[in-house]
Amino acid sequence: MVYKSLQQLEELVKNKPVRRLAVAAADDKTVLLSIKSAYEANYIHPILVGNSAKIEHIAAEIGLNLQNVEIVHAASADEASRFAVSLIRSEKADVLMKGMVPTAIILRAVVDKENGMIKGNEILSHISISEISCYHKLLALTDGAMNISPDFNQKIQILNNAVNVLRNLGYEKPKVAVLAPLETVNMKIESSVHGAVMSVMNKRKQIKNCIVDGPLALDNAISAEASKHKAIESEVAGDADILLVSDLNMGNGLYKAFNFLANAQTAAIITGGCAPIVLTSRADSEQNKHMSIVLACLMVK
Amino acid sequence: MVYKSLQQLEELVKNKPVRRLAVAAADDKTVLLSIKSAYEANYIHPILVGNSAKIEHIAAEIGLNLQNVEIVHAASADEASRFAVSLIRSEKADVLMKGMVPTAIILRAVVDKENGMIKGNEILSHISISEISCYHKLLALTDGAMNISPDFNQKIQILNNAVNVLRNLGYEKPKVAVLAPLETVNMKIESSVHGAVMSVMNKRKQIKNCIVDGPLALDNAISAEASKHKAIESEVAGDADILLVSDLNMGNGLYKAFNFLANAQTAAIITGGCAPIVLTSRADSEQNKHMSIVLACLMVK
Repeated sequence: MVYKSLQQLEELVKNKPVRRLAVAAADDKTVLLSIKSAYEANYIHPILVGNSAKIEHIAAEIGLNLQNVEIVHAASADEASRFAVSLIRSEKADVLMKGMVPTAIILRAVVDKENGMIKGNEILSHISISEISCYHKLLALTDGAMNISPDFNQKIQILNNAVNVLRNLGYEKPKVAVLAPLETVNMKIESSVHGAVMSVMNKRKQIKNCIVDGPLALDNAISAEASKHKAIESEVAGDADILLVSDLNMGNGLYKAFNFLANAQTAAIITGGCAPIVLTSRADSEQNKHMSIVLACLMVK
Repeated sequence: MVYKSLQQLEELVKNKPVRRLAVAAADDKTVLLSIKSAYEANYIHPILVGNSAKIEHIAAEIGLNLQNVEIVHAASADEASRFAVSLIRSEKADVLMKGMVPTAIILRAVVDKENGMIKGNEILSHISISEISCYHKLLALTDGAMNISPDFNQKIQILNNAVNVLRNLGYEKPKVAVLAPLETVNMKIESSVHGAVMSVMNKRKQIKNCIVDGPLALDNAISAEASKHKAIESEVAGDADILLVSDLNMGNGLYKAFNFLANAQTAAIITGGCAPIVLTSRADSEQNKHMSIVLACLMVK
């Protein structure tokens, strides 16, 4: 299975059960607007944690019908975050969403050893899935917003997190391009070394459920013509499903380039914990926020 | 002065003297095709260094009139590179262009201490100038192809090299965004620290002839709306002329994203030596190769 558009993902969610979405610090207009379309389409059952009076006031203002919505009062963004996470832990909610709370505060609740959403050595990572008119299918990118400078083992976990997301969507063996500034190995360029090593680990079945190739420069990964110019023989080159970046400088740069210069439509979640997390930013478009909720709903087992 | 399109740069070159372009290892069809349009427009006087019989044969094949072309025989790509560089040093050529020679070999001739094109501590860097439909003016990016992991002082030189290029085009004080994954300083993210430091060095006039701001994420740098969402007060945010990247992973990723996913038209040169260098790749489009020659011609004093 390979998808060409985010609309195809939205079609999938229509056949799924309604998912319980716990929003931490929901007392904000932008936040409530961002869940409105998914709620009205009956994809989600919102559990709004935050200042209840303020939530009700804003809901009335934006015409959000509260009939199938739960509201849980919390006195602060910190309390709201911890309560929303506890709903996930106790299986009373399926998806966590960040509302009007600083990322650092909600993540503190998520990664809390005692009461958080992480088991053992799992790491959280960001994955975005973009529809870009210049590319022939959906293109996933990881990690564009979470891990600053992952070491080799963390990169493997980030890769596996992303592969799991695509397999949950129905991909059997997603094609992973390990990005570097060039397609040949240069021992002075760590990303090129990591690409080569991961590609062999994939051949030896140390990395499973996907086809990995690297190092590949971005053009080699997504353009059959560019990879032909370099005479690259690869199942992944020109046809990547997932781009694995070297670090956050590269990941965030590409993520922003896709959205702000390549006119991408994008869904993005934080994955790797016991439930998907929607962590949109104010600068995201309404459509991107909606599609991020859709993607999170599709990750619920 | 601010330009909206590469076509405006081409208008500039029409009023300049014809520039002498030394091509190292010109005995290749793709290479000769890439200079044909600039030659026929009378922007350049080509000095083709390489296998002379092969050059003449290919010229006949592609209809390249050799009347105003010099041909210098060289037995190998290495010899051709060294001779082409010597033409620059002896002021018999204005622009160096890489032909059918590996980048490493021509660069060895360029950086040679005795017979090369570098004075003192100058460093070479790559700058691309792109026309992207989502952005309201030309957008320069540095360094997308040359410096792997520049230290702080090298980044300052790369920044100054780029500022010089834009000033040669007529910009008085180009706006430089020092890119990072976010707009706030995080001491764990070196690019964000470098952005802050460079921005203050600019205020203290340690970096001159430009307006520097950083750290900025790519969206803050090029989207007024995204920077407004973050309440960033900056002359550069949303209006950058130059993007300074953290390293080659990020630079090459963005360079390829602009060209292969954002439909950019791009001119690119290597700058920082005593003459501009055109170093296009086979995967570049004909138009991008042509515009790179145009940009190089505009850099000649």
